[in-house]
Amino acid sequence: MIILLGGNGYIGSAYRSYLQNSGMPFCSPPRRQLDCVDAIRLADFLREKEADFLINAAGYTGKPNVDACEENKADCLLGNAVLPGVVAKACALVNIPWGHVSSGCLYSGRRADGAGFTEEDPPNFSFRQSNCSFYSGCKALGEEVLAGAPQCYIWRLRIPFDEVDSPRNYLSKLMRYEKLLDVENSLSHLGEFVQATLQCRKQNLPFGVYNMTNPGSVTTREVVELIQDSGVRRWKPQYFASEESFMQTAAKAPRSSCVLDSSKITGAGIVLTPVKEAIRNALRNWRPED
Amino acid sequence: MIILLGGNGYIGSAYRSYLQNSGMPFCSPPRRQLDCVDAIRLADFLREKEADFLINAAGYTGKPNVDACEENKADCLLGNAVLPGVVAKACALVNIPWGHVSSGCLYSGRRADGAGFTEEDPPNFSFRQSNCSFYSGCKALGEEVLAGAPQCYIWRLRIPFDEVDSPRNYLSKLMRYEKLLDVENSLSHLGEFVQATLQCRKQNLPFGVYNMTNPGSVTTREVVELIQDSGVRRWKPQYFASEESFMQTAAKAPRSSCVLDSSKITGAGIVLTPVKEAIRNALRNWRPED
Repeated sequence: MIILLGGNGYIGSAYRSYLQNSGMPFCSPPRRQLDCVDAIRLADFLREKEADFLINAAGYTGKPNVDACEENKADCLLGNAVLPGVVAKACALVNIPWGHVSSGCLYSGRRADGAGFTEEDPPNFSFRQSNCSFYSGCKALGEEVLAGAPQCYIWRLRIPFDEVDSPRNYLSKLMRYEKLLDVENSLSHLGEFVQATLQCRKQNLPFGVYNMTNPGSVTTREVVELIQDSGVRRWKPQYFASEESFMQTAAKAPRSSCVLDSSKITGAGIVLTPVKEAIRNALRNWRPED
Repeated sequence: MIILLGGNGYIGSAYRSYLQNSGMPFCSPPRRQLDCVDAIRLADFLREKEADFLINAAGYTGKPNVDACEENKADCLLGNAVLPGVVAKACALVNIPWGHVSSGCLYSGRRADGAGFTEEDPPNFSFRQSNCSFYSGCKALGEEVLAGAPQCYIWRLRIPFDEVDSPRNYLSKLMRYEKLLDVENSLSHLGEFVQATLQCRKQNLPFGVYNMTNPGSVTTREVVELIQDSGVRRWKPQYFASEESFMQTAAKAPRSSCVLDSSKITGAGIVLTPVKEAIRNALRNWRPED
């Protein structure tokens, strides 16, 4: 039995669909049912359900975007830094493996040598390293809290997208803005992310951190071109002259734009579609919101 | 009615004694009674008790010392960074003023100009600024969470001591070690701290941050001399050659040693005994543990 925390969120819903479709037995307790700071109670629940794996897709992301985390700092800390520690304690008490949905937003830019960041590179967009967003700081603390946790996968998602129009889908977000910031990023196709994380378990990969992004990177302008080419939306977005101008007029929290190296997970034999191809596929199969 | 959170801790116990002795009506709910992440429930409790002030002396400090925070990061974040935000929300909901016991451990050293740190100086021993201890990082996040909270005093305590022998009393701690690190610090006499914080309320001082340390600073060697002179204990402690050697052999977390400027609170007419005199007085009235 797999326990799914955060099953009603954007990422959690993708896990629900996948687990349902693949017929894997799972249970996703509603938030109210579990005290998110009581590891003993969570451990009791895991025992009662005879859980043999847990997925933590719960977290606080801020709506409509990450700026909301600057206003709700206690919630952001609780959901992204404290909760992972509580889950780690509970899973250790009942001795089961588990996976935590982390984020690639712990990084900014590329490595000094021009390559993408690997799992060995310490976060550079965290409270410890830079003037990061409160959200990124909390996600980085979440990973720091989990350092040394036994039987724990840390799966780094980075800017999820797929073929379903939604306010949380990166492609939908881009299409809804008239003015964009041109930056370079690695991205994660949501369905591929979910499948790849469950492959870690199936193939008994070593525990630890995995960058779960589609290989490669794209700039905002490149994604806009792919959208134009697909015909899903035709518009001429403007671009901010610089990150400073974006920060001054449109954002509260600095954004993490970064390139991740996904060779650890692909090297383990888990296939992820190169990012531009994955975007093209999503746009080809685009399903507008009802 | 004053609500005291954390009334069973070292600092909270000093508040209990003071409030009892001065006949001020107060109520200190046990930890179990209040869900520390539920602001709505705390607000209901405040209404029910007709609270007109709250003191948050709850926090996670680690036993026997701050190194324990490196092992219990989720608890440390919860008690020191999330809880203040929850209390702020609850007090805002019922529109009452309150005070948060923060810490001077957000700083290291002295200002570049040689002076002590004032309330205007941003913390330099925090996740955002340095390779701080997890405890200091969490306390600094707690203050960051409270930025902009209405009707909120932030009272910075720094290394509490008094005349009562106790494992949490700085003087007792020093006497129990055979090998010490010689550093310079500001300190807070616990009883004077408690009295001064309640004076803020009585005198309707403006809300905001207050360094609540006894004026001046002392080095470890100076405190040892004061202890020797008092006759309370006569021993010849050794000293670590350097902070590096201390970190290598005796500690996990880097320590905050710092000098604070307490002129904001003393300038408001609240009297605190100069630190060396306060230490001499405590040693003169020393009460050994039973």
